[in-house]
Amino acid sequence: MQHFANQYRDELLENVIPFWLKNSKDEKNGGYFTCLDRQGVVFDTDKFMWLQGREVWCFSMLCDKVERRPEWLAMAQHGAAFMQKYGRDERGNWYFSTTADGSPLMQPYNIFSDCFAMMGFAALDKVAPADTYQTIVRETFENILRRRDNWKGDYNKAYPGTRPLRNFALPMILCNLSLEAEHILGTETVNSFIPTVIHEVMEVFYQPDSGLTLENVQPDGSFSDSFDGRLLNPGHVIEAMWFIMDLGHRLGDQALIQKACERMLTTLEYGWDKQYGGIFYFMDIQGHPPQQLEWDQKLWWVHVETLVGLAKAYQYTGNERCKTWFEILHEYTWKHFKDPEYPEWYGYLNRRGEVLLPLKGGKWKGCFHVPRALYQVWKTLEAKSEK
Amino acid sequence: MQHFANQYRDELLENVIPFWLKNSKDEKNGGYFTCLDRQGVVFDTDKFMWLQGREVWCFSMLCDKVERRPEWLAMAQHGAAFMQKYGRDERGNWYFSTTADGSPLMQPYNIFSDCFAMMGFAALDKVAPADTYQTIVRETFENILRRRDNWKGDYNKAYPGTRPLRNFALPMILCNLSLEAEHILGTETVNSFIPTVIHEVMEVFYQPDSGLTLENVQPDGSFSDSFDGRLLNPGHVIEAMWFIMDLGHRLGDQALIQKACERMLTTLEYGWDKQYGGIFYFMDIQGHPPQQLEWDQKLWWVHVETLVGLAKAYQYTGNERCKTWFEILHEYTWKHFKDPEYPEWYGYLNRRGEVLLPLKGGKWKGCFHVPRALYQVWKTLEAKSEK
Repeated sequence: MQHFANQYRDELLENVIPFWLKNSKDEKNGGYFTCLDRQGVVFDTDKFMWLQGREVWCFSMLCDKVERRPEWLAMAQHGAAFMQKYGRDERGNWYFSTTADGSPLMQPYNIFSDCFAMMGFAALDKVAPADTYQTIVRETFENILRRRDNWKGDYNKAYPGTRPLRNFALPMILCNLSLEAEHILGTETVNSFIPTVIHEVMEVFYQPDSGLTLENVQPDGSFSDSFDGRLLNPGHVIEAMWFIMDLGHRLGDQALIQKACERMLTTLEYGWDKQYGGIFYFMDIQGHPPQQLEWDQKLWWVHVETLVGLAKAYQYTGNERCKTWFEILHEYTWKHFKDPEYPEWYGYLNRRGEVLLPLKGGKWKGCFHVPRALYQVWKTLEAKSEK
Repeated sequence: MQHFANQYRDELLENVIPFWLKNSKDEKNGGYFTCLDRQGVVFDTDKFMWLQGREVWCFSMLCDKVERRPEWLAMAQHGAAFMQKYGRDERGNWYFSTTADGSPLMQPYNIFSDCFAMMGFAALDKVAPADTYQTIVRETFENILRRRDNWKGDYNKAYPGTRPLRNFALPMILCNLSLEAEHILGTETVNSFIPTVIHEVMEVFYQPDSGLTLENVQPDGSFSDSFDGRLLNPGHVIEAMWFIMDLGHRLGDQALIQKACERMLTTLEYGWDKQYGGIFYFMDIQGHPPQQLEWDQKLWWVHVETLVGLAKAYQYTGNERCKTWFEILHEYTWKHFKDPEYPEWYGYLNRRGEVLLPLKGGKWKGCFHVPRALYQVWKTLEAKSEK
């Protein structure tokens, strides 16, 4: 697998990271532009806190894990400075978006803005420690914990009590966040989240009959026959499974790794489009029409996270099905998502794998999934080769 | 055009209306199921007030305009009874959705629930007058007017003041609503809305440079270079233009009719997919990637509303371009949206015109656009033929 390792490393360091370094820095106002067209030209100047935080995280992570390059550190600090200055309301909640010059645009209705802000500052603090960064991490984490049970707050449109579904996303992210900030929050805090997330992800949302893991279940974990209850997001489950495998590795729990590996493969085989290839974005577990019109599209993050999952599963288990599937995913992903002419990858393809939107970055796609996956696959396969 | 008139009438009375009469009635709880699969089988039981109100409107309208059939009147009253009993909160605002048995599911965050409820009760009151219906119409209209300037209320995620865009939808619907309830609200009220809507639709949102009409503009009518500001929804504009043509007819203003006809054709030619046919759902007026992933899909309501617009424009102006385009739209729409095997039409096609979701009804598609358009085209072309 060494040739794959080299290919992913080169793509990260020579193609993707230079794209963001060159095109996403707002020299005038600070922060990052993320709405970048095929060639890297800015087509919209709004700033989304999800993507500001994720880009701070990405450049900090590279400094920490790859090499302490001054331009990477400066890039991370450039985004962090903008976020510190303009990113929060008076209660410390992170806005969803601001204008280019930092005026708040969309209210802090989305707790994941806080999550990715915290991730960014925690990563930056590892390579450029500062009391202000640590304070932001602690305060943001407290806010997230305070809001966790009703994280949409006043913006929650659901009538209380009628269909109180539990959602898969937050337990996942809480554990991930605590790991990212372990050097600030302490190992004890991290260890207190691990059993909960393993229980939630591997038991509460898992449906033994089908072997699939749902996005939303009733409070007692039972199935809700509704649009939300029938929803399967294969990429989300696969991403969760590699995260669980990493936890299993940390805990030395090989049985957990095996279980996560199996569930990942079941989900992948269920979500794979037998007609055109690629993984569906959304599915209804009973085969009914999903409410998401984009259900059959092929999204970059789904595919690159699956590459990470398969590489890790192969490293941890040696299961040959993971290797075979890795090669299938590798071929599909590099053929359809990588732009052969300009740097960075496409984000949105139609069912046939044709480019649906020619952007390299937008409201939801930033400097995150592609570089993180390239890094993870590179390091995973390199370790595997060195075994 | 008489053969077209007959074809649209027969499709309405022999195919589409029987589908809803047979499949959408919830005998147990009252109200209508609208999530119906290709063959008409219920696949989800949630009840959406948009679609409850629209189906009450549709069956009432048929009683009023086509024939007073007892089963149509009973069907309208069946939905109205459910809505009266379960549809509103204690302040008279209409929920977005309820469960099958009427427990509130989604809060009244969406003012269009109120609009379509009012439309339904106003239409029903024409064929089965009742004080309770009139009271509902008056109270709902007052609520809509009270909420009109901040109609998302507490659910509005936009930070106040940063980018205060005006939206195209509400002025349109207010005028439409007042017309639908003219027998209750009085002609004076209707006449007070007409100049405003004509000004808004034909001047405020219209961009003289391109000849196109935007969904959102700045308070002074100028262009906002943002995702929302660049948004064009061709079907929405075309639907608005036939509405303006009807107003022009009411006012005897032939110049207004001509202008609306020209703008409809400009919008249609801009929104037409030169590669695969059909009209795009969303476009960015500067050619940037829109944020809506479903932008290239072909939706039923866009196409059937365009058929109405072209038929009316041809009737009112005799413009041969309208006739030519009507024939193109007719061929595309009947070929791709009509299901040759089972009743009612598909709602969602991909860019190539292939079925994306095999449903006949769902969360947003109910007993409304297809039957209304079939009725409007039938009557319009019949009148044209009789001239």
